[in-house]
Amino acid sequence: MTRVAIIGAGPSGMAQLRAFQSAQQKGVEIPEIVCFEKQADWGGQWNYTWHTGMDEHGEPVHSSMYRYLWSNGPKECLEFADYTFDEHFGRQIGSYPPRAVLWDYIKGRVEKADVRKYVRFNTAVRAVQYTEISKQFSVNVHDHEQDMIYTEIFDFVIVASGHFSTPKIPEYKGFDLFSGRILHAHDFRDALEFKDKTVLILGSSYSAEDIGSQCYKYGAKQIISCYRSAPMGYKWPEKWSERPKLSCVDQTHAYFSDASSAQIDAIILCTGYLHSFPFMQEPLRLKTNNILYPLNLYQGVVWEQNPQLFYLGMQDQWYSFNMFDAQAWYARDVILGEIALPSLDEMQADTLQWHKEEKNLPDASAMFKFQGDYIMRLIKMTDYPTFDIEGVRQTFLEWKKHKKENIMTFRDHTYRSLMTGTMAIAHHTTWLNALDDSLEAYLQPEQTLQKKVG
Amino acid sequence: MTRVAIIGAGPSGMAQLRAFQSAQQKGVEIPEIVCFEKQADWGGQWNYTWHTGMDEHGEPVHSSMYRYLWSNGPKECLEFADYTFDEHFGRQIGSYPPRAVLWDYIKGRVEKADVRKYVRFNTAVRAVQYTEISKQFSVNVHDHEQDMIYTEIFDFVIVASGHFSTPKIPEYKGFDLFSGRILHAHDFRDALEFKDKTVLILGSSYSAEDIGSQCYKYGAKQIISCYRSAPMGYKWPEKWSERPKLSCVDQTHAYFSDASSAQIDAIILCTGYLHSFPFMQEPLRLKTNNILYPLNLYQGVVWEQNPQLFYLGMQDQWYSFNMFDAQAWYARDVILGEIALPSLDEMQADTLQWHKEEKNLPDASAMFKFQGDYIMRLIKMTDYPTFDIEGVRQTFLEWKKHKKENIMTFRDHTYRSLMTGTMAIAHHTTWLNALDDSLEAYLQPEQTLQKKVG
Repeated sequence: MTRVAIIGAGPSGMAQLRAFQSAQQKGVEIPEIVCFEKQADWGGQWNYTWHTGMDEHGEPVHSSMYRYLWSNGPKECLEFADYTFDEHFGRQIGSYPPRAVLWDYIKGRVEKADVRKYVRFNTAVRAVQYTEISKQFSVNVHDHEQDMIYTEIFDFVIVASGHFSTPKIPEYKGFDLFSGRILHAHDFRDALEFKDKTVLILGSSYSAEDIGSQCYKYGAKQIISCYRSAPMGYKWPEKWSERPKLSCVDQTHAYFSDASSAQIDAIILCTGYLHSFPFMQEPLRLKTNNILYPLNLYQGVVWEQNPQLFYLGMQDQWYSFNMFDAQAWYARDVILGEIALPSLDEMQADTLQWHKEEKNLPDASAMFKFQGDYIMRLIKMTDYPTFDIEGVRQTFLEWKKHKKENIMTFRDHTYRSLMTGTMAIAHHTTWLNALDDSLEAYLQPEQTLQKKVG
Repeated sequence: MTRVAIIGAGPSGMAQLRAFQSAQQKGVEIPEIVCFEKQADWGGQWNYTWHTGMDEHGEPVHSSMYRYLWSNGPKECLEFADYTFDEHFGRQIGSYPPRAVLWDYIKGRVEKADVRKYVRFNTAVRAVQYTEISKQFSVNVHDHEQDMIYTEIFDFVIVASGHFSTPKIPEYKGFDLFSGRILHAHDFRDALEFKDKTVLILGSSYSAEDIGSQCYKYGAKQIISCYRSAPMGYKWPEKWSERPKLSCVDQTHAYFSDASSAQIDAIILCTGYLHSFPFMQEPLRLKTNNILYPLNLYQGVVWEQNPQLFYLGMQDQWYSFNMFDAQAWYARDVILGEIALPSLDEMQADTLQWHKEEKNLPDASAMFKFQGDYIMRLIKMTDYPTFDIEGVRQTFLEWKKHKKENIMTFRDHTYRSLMTGTMAIAHHTTWLNALDDSLEAYLQPEQTLQKKVG
């Protein structure tokens, strides 16, 4: 029987499990599936852990999730086409749910699909190798429940291990002398650790913007963010300032390229992540920076040099959950033989064209369209439910506008579902005042809340 | 030509390099040696890094070293028999040198031996596998300078990757709610991060005792250490208290088994390390807890099931550098065919006897003797210079007495070298007052210092 290995049971791996189950539900015979998951539970990034660095099994901690994280984009842009928020919660909720609520949502779909049985938890993949003679992969894994390393053979491998786990870490003069804490965003857990502190944030992308906002919200004394090329340029609250490039630090101070300096208590490196697949042998290993259309992946998914291998979700992500779905359904249909692939030359030429096109995209709006078009192209080739991708793009544009208006209140806005047409409801508390991010607090009906407050 | 792979260029790997070079110096033909080192420089633990969690290549950070660490045992107990402190520094120094001074010392020997050429730096070992047919090992490594994974073939493999790198991490109720920082000793870097804080230390062994002392020395507000079985029982300064087992924590407080509680700012897990060799395939992988005589290693070194494989330094360590030397010289002579091994049955019987004997050791003094006897047994079989092992044991006993007298001043004592017979000199500043731990500050002659102070 054909065997498929899925590496990782995060959002991409879960999408792949659901894709196969969806086919099976419609009467298609599916291959034997084994999903290897390093963590004790599924959800990938969304499975919060207090651990930093190494986990209880000596594995690098996968999740970069921190306490109090709320979605930084509208949930209407990541909604599954086959499992809506309305279906999961039985009613509408706000547009920027906190971590626990999103985790609940993505788990809801795969629990309904009954695919947990395919996952081997606490099992880290060590090495994936392809054997020309057998035309199969040997997948070497470490089962931490038994503390046993073993190898199994598969016909197809789907890498769904994400690319927000391995920190990209810069080196600055004086880091070895600084007496405060230096941590990467990957190890950031609780903004309260930085209460009453002056925090230096390196970087100017999503982590910088959101971790800075967390520190602000939970009482940091001062936030200094610094950039290499351009400032984030939001209207920051008074105690948050942007400075140009960091030059160096000493035991207590940071020095910037404009000759200014500041006493700082901690340095948070919001400097991005590496696409890191140390378990993939050389000819199978994706090497790319974080872009919308990496080379070597036909349709963004198929490893061109060996189409028995797939990578999911390796793009820079405007779209996320529903893009992983489009990719998983596509990978499934290639494996099932429903979709035929062109020649290697044709695949490479096609990828190169899209890869080049990305370089000419003038602005974020064009990027939304580029990635939206890509997703639609995939969806048209499978039975994944189609949806109003132009509507999603418009929602992205609104989101950008709302952020620009006020970075501290944009999460109080609501948007219309492109799947069900229903409007999100305003959350009972504004984001800046909602200090309890638990699922229970978030889903508490406004009535109950008012009663309690009253 | 026979090929030998050494995994790790820390104290054990460096000892192995020196062992081969020493034979070569005496006219012996040595095999081709390749030493794979994950870090950019050698020295293992002694190569301090500001990084925590993952390093710049996405590898788990190897070193658990922290700033301001001074040797916690007399240097006279770890002195190399073939390269003394007198030889390296050209004079005597204090008995408890700080990290940079010890690093300088161990580097001095291998620089003199000119063995750096054998080391491939920034190269992490991914997988070691033995092939029955060829009777050789395939060693799969990741060269981070080229970002290239490759495999080479070896006749012998020596695992010298240490066992103080993979944290053993406990789970307590409330760790996922605690709003302060939780870190393992492995990620502890600078005691100044905990100035004016109340620090909870879990554990009662060397890390607990020393990290607590660091926090005390550098101005923590309060130190609470807690134990599972027995208190450390030293005479702690006023702001340090010992409590029994931790029961749980909440967002701000720790609760102990004696029903007491305390507000705490940070939790440091001094809970030990795992013997972790995820890169060794199952039949080659050492699984042991931290004891003086692990099973499966004949003479504490030879992998009984496959005597082409060796592990160095995997014992619980009273002795360290000179024990690694004794082991490295022994492994070398087995590889060179100078030492013949008995049958598997005989090896296992021998190991089992020592392993059982360890269980009956009544106290630390007996353990010093047990490990000293073990080292002498190895040394007698090779040309490693012998030394006064009973003298070392006496020094260990003095050390224990001095710690018992005063845990904050024991490092101000001096001992006589068992190699050269010279007496260590008192350091120019007492440990508690020596806040600058740099090599320059430590080696500064007293005269200069007095002049500067005056």
